[in-house]
Amino acid sequence: MKLVTFEHDGAVKAGTLEGDTIAICDDGPDADTAVLQRIRSGETGPWPPIATVSVDAVRLLAPVPRPLRDIICVGKNYVAHAAEFHNSGFDSTGKEATPSYPVIFSKAMTSIVGPEADVNASLDPTKSVDYEGELGVVIGKTARRVAKADAFDYVFGYTIINDVTSRELQKRHNQWVIGKGLDTFCPMGPFVATKDEVHDLDALELVTSVNGEVRQRAVVKDLIFDIPTLIATITATATLLPGDIIATGTPAGVGIGFDPPVFLSSGDRMDVSITGLGTLSNPVV
Amino acid sequence: MKLVTFEHDGAVKAGTLEGDTIAICDDGPDADTAVLQRIRSGETGPWPPIATVSVDAVRLLAPVPRPLRDIICVGKNYVAHAAEFHNSGFDSTGKEATPSYPVIFSKAMTSIVGPEADVNASLDPTKSVDYEGELGVVIGKTARRVAKADAFDYVFGYTIINDVTSRELQKRHNQWVIGKGLDTFCPMGPFVATKDEVHDLDALELVTSVNGEVRQRAVVKDLIFDIPTLIATITATATLLPGDIIATGTPAGVGIGFDPPVFLSSGDRMDVSITGLGTLSNPVV
Repeated sequence: MKLVTFEHDGAVKAGTLEGDTIAICDDGPDADTAVLQRIRSGETGPWPPIATVSVDAVRLLAPVPRPLRDIICVGKNYVAHAAEFHNSGFDSTGKEATPSYPVIFSKAMTSIVGPEADVNASLDPTKSVDYEGELGVVIGKTARRVAKADAFDYVFGYTIINDVTSRELQKRHNQWVIGKGLDTFCPMGPFVATKDEVHDLDALELVTSVNGEVRQRAVVKDLIFDIPTLIATITATATLLPGDIIATGTPAGVGIGFDPPVFLSSGDRMDVSITGLGTLSNPVV
Repeated sequence: MKLVTFEHDGAVKAGTLEGDTIAICDDGPDADTAVLQRIRSGETGPWPPIATVSVDAVRLLAPVPRPLRDIICVGKNYVAHAAEFHNSGFDSTGKEATPSYPVIFSKAMTSIVGPEADVNASLDPTKSVDYEGELGVVIGKTARRVAKADAFDYVFGYTIINDVTSRELQKRHNQWVIGKGLDTFCPMGPFVATKDEVHDLDALELVTSVNGEVRQRAVVKDLIFDIPTLIATITATATLLPGDIIATGTPAGVGIGFDPPVFLSSGDRMDVSITGLGTLSNPVV
């Protein structure tokens, strides 16, 4: 099942996507949190539809526009990206190129936008905006002290996240909340796919393009810390809640991997695709 | 007005505290978010009471037990503490003792506990648990691109936060979400005081004691980045929401300031007091 939140006829609604057809399942006043509530309910059966509409007749929003809290993110989680970031001069944290422990930070929930929404690069006074295509993992139930072997029991599904970053602000402030949390800097979507939709997680390929030029290409198998390790590490000491979203890190090929760095600017277009999870496209303004 | 959330007669309720008397203002099923909703409503008049009860007859919880998102925190924001942390060997981030820009990180909302709640040091496998008494600022309305001169218009009030930290986990993971976000590691309270209760913010004195021995003593005037600077810096690029909480940083005197470091262990008791904001006391288990 592919869960979506969208605007249609001037209202926010939620439902499921199959092919080019959306089944509208919630058109009430709280529809902007309906996907989140669906995840939190633990309900895994079909979501009863009210009506159907063509996907072309709606504007998709982030599937979880208002999560319970900030997005949990993983830094330096692909070997080649960890090296390019470490060598870029923008890594203010850590002495190792490849981390020995997962680097966990957060991204403001206020930065979330949906597919085709503008990413407002003009908010960054340092003009150092960079893309980071990532696989997002959506947690399905309260998770504490989870063993690696049980980790997927706690996964609801997957989505795409573009962890857009101001590299200068990321560096200046040492901790990354400021450089990662600019308004509009967290495109998410186009949908959350339930985990049964993904048959070979390791084989999922992530491809990020800028203006049609491929910049990032990697498979999930290349993660330094895989999803069970991330869930086990985080829940060893902290609680994850149903509806929490983990952005698992970005592969090599970001703008600071170039010499000199290549940053995004108004008029650019980013596309992040993951096998089976669609394409998340956003213009930069 | 002092806003409180508490357990009474087996239920969570919310209201206001005056002297030793609590006016119960919400005893409904959503009372655990009633203080948050009150803040978000923009209502500044009296909160109509349903009944009164002695504070001794209730168990106070964190005044905002379930905020909208994670706590926004400031690192290295008192000169002497920035130096002690920088010199401790536990500062994995930043090359400067005194930061040139505010160091902003987040603390998991799942770590929040109330006054007298146990802080579970046994969750930290590295046995390096440390206290950090801090002034918490509660945002009162949506804040974007706020000038320093206008910053207090966006403040609802103040509370006390103890930013309990695992120093080894803070260091290992480079970014601080793991080391700061252990379950029970965010005592908050005993109440949120509306800003009109605070007559001279700069003069507020923060005192942290462990087992009755004073460890931290500072006034708010000693902040490197004051509250208007923090609000202006964060909102320059990101949106703050009503109900957001900023923990403004801790003064010198934490356990890693000692040589060798002195960590917390089961049986210890922490007390953080701020002028006019009460005392936040928690046992370590």
